[in-house]
Amino acid sequence: MSDRVAVLAHGKFPDRSKTANGIIRYADYEVAAVLDRDRPGERVADHLPGVADAPVVASFADVPDDVDALVIGIAPIGGGFDESWRPDVEAAIEAGCDVVSGLHYFLNDDDDLAALAAEHGVELWDVRRPDSDIGVAEGRSDEVDADVVLTVGTDCSVGKMTATMEIVDAAREAGIDACAIPTGQTGIMIEGWGNPVDRVVSDFTAGAVEEMILEKGDDHDLLVVEGQGSIVHPAYSAVTCGILHGAMADELVMCHAAGREAIHGYESFDLPPLPEYVDLYESLAAPVHGTEVVAGALNTADLDDDAAAEAAVEEFAAGIDAPATDLIRFGAEEVVEAIR
Amino acid sequence: MSDRVAVLAHGKFPDRSKTANGIIRYADYEVAAVLDRDRPGERVADHLPGVADAPVVASFADVPDDVDALVIGIAPIGGGFDESWRPDVEAAIEAGCDVVSGLHYFLNDDDDLAALAAEHGVELWDVRRPDSDIGVAEGRSDEVDADVVLTVGTDCSVGKMTATMEIVDAAREAGIDACAIPTGQTGIMIEGWGNPVDRVVSDFTAGAVEEMILEKGDDHDLLVVEGQGSIVHPAYSAVTCGILHGAMADELVMCHAAGREAIHGYESFDLPPLPEYVDLYESLAAPVHGTEVVAGALNTADLDDDAAAEAAVEEFAAGIDAPATDLIRFGAEEVVEAIR
Repeated sequence: MSDRVAVLAHGKFPDRSKTANGIIRYADYEVAAVLDRDRPGERVADHLPGVADAPVVASFADVPDDVDALVIGIAPIGGGFDESWRPDVEAAIEAGCDVVSGLHYFLNDDDDLAALAAEHGVELWDVRRPDSDIGVAEGRSDEVDADVVLTVGTDCSVGKMTATMEIVDAAREAGIDACAIPTGQTGIMIEGWGNPVDRVVSDFTAGAVEEMILEKGDDHDLLVVEGQGSIVHPAYSAVTCGILHGAMADELVMCHAAGREAIHGYESFDLPPLPEYVDLYESLAAPVHGTEVVAGALNTADLDDDAAAEAAVEEFAAGIDAPATDLIRFGAEEVVEAIR
Repeated sequence: MSDRVAVLAHGKFPDRSKTANGIIRYADYEVAAVLDRDRPGERVADHLPGVADAPVVASFADVPDDVDALVIGIAPIGGGFDESWRPDVEAAIEAGCDVVSGLHYFLNDDDDLAALAAEHGVELWDVRRPDSDIGVAEGRSDEVDADVVLTVGTDCSVGKMTATMEIVDAAREAGIDACAIPTGQTGIMIEGWGNPVDRVVSDFTAGAVEEMILEKGDDHDLLVVEGQGSIVHPAYSAVTCGILHGAMADELVMCHAAGREAIHGYESFDLPPLPEYVDLYESLAAPVHGTEVVAGALNTADLDDDAAAEAAVEEFAAGIDAPATDLIRFGAEEVVEAIR
């Protein structure tokens, strides 16, 4: 695992660079610079409060310090490789840096980049390429000593990865030996390991989660599994369902974005009422492993003032019939309390 | 598509050769012989009533007529290639036959077989290798003109593929322009096309079903989608959930095996009560597309006499609160009636 990194986010920092922001906020990496050719001279702290500051630069050549790796911190629709990034990736490899990518397009399958990496003795890490030894679940995740919590959601992009990381951090601050179980590319980049559950063979979806829980479950007291998608998503519910049954979670934390009324990108599909989500997740999980929604995480980033956010949180808590908060805005202590 | 085939089922015909039996019973192929080295001299009709008869022979060399293809009709646990089959596969290729396989082990990745096939100008068809153009669902399966029925189940191996084929056949006999949507290797071999939904990338599970429905939906009046697994299966529920939301079915047919009380191969997991299955499938489907369990298909093959089978069917029908029958034992007309 690399210590000091540059993060590529051309044209998308900070509002459309979810992966870059996650790495800046949660990873153990020291971020030496963000690459965004539209914002050279700006600072990370201008845009993301409460994180370690770093310069925004136009290209890899402008990164002020030596770094160990370049991380691709944006994911265009479709997950392709933007050819405009190639000079920066090549410059990084030539400077002896590893390159970390969560794209669907695998850098290792790019003959030119693979040859250049071999020549310079650096590693291209495609975090979305699943390990070949992942197989079917055996229904054994409940055998581990740790308490298992799963973040579930009303939709994609409501903050499940963020909630997972905030809960782990707050649990550790409360003295609990907690560990995140990363299931998506950003979580995997942050933690430096994990299975990209949305990229495994569909028969192995639950197995990909179980494998991680069995690996970590006896070394920690609390595992927080990063959920994906939503159980009623027209495209991605398979991944959600596989994680739900593969994790055999003891408790669920329901994640939602304030004001979201229809499925993101599938606007003709209304979100069902919150109590229906609670019923669905609990009743679907029960035959494999009984579980309960014990807390909620509401993303209120779109609400300007705290009073509006508090009102939204209160309404959300009533909807799921459990304590809730915005973990970024108000802290995660309440959620950690609820899952203990 | 080949016309006349030999079906390899060494050591497993007829009780553990689900794929071979499905092809013999439902495919348009003419089956010239079944290969089972343990039963040379026996006849297919000795074991499977109501199907076209054929000899059982010890090896490909003993197949009495010219055939166009050899079909691998058994699937060992793990889906590997049994080296004892190689002489028959090679003999078939050398005789100018295509080879059709639903194994996880892809014949096209076997350098020796691939070279031999190229030399003899024959095709190796790995039905479990997904098309590379399958992608995420768009939530559009409800746009087709056809009525869409999905077979769902209480577990794996309860008869969803069989129910699908029986319903299509009975619907056609009733004058309905029906089409099966095959999602597993046997269904794909029988129909000669289809997407192996359990082998696609998990993010594309629903998309693999939608793609088939959009392709066929305007050319037929009834699509019967072959379901997989069960919505509460510890390992395979992801596939089931993706098919449920990808199909956007108008009606569901619940499949069950008489006497099954625990999940096959996962015996520590009890099957929930039948009404709970109905609730789960319907309530999980509803936010994407409203649907209803309108009929049931009970597999009573383990019950010797018809009276016991009738009693089991009656109890099952009460459990799902819908008309039910054993489609093999008593015919599929009642189910076709219920979905009209």
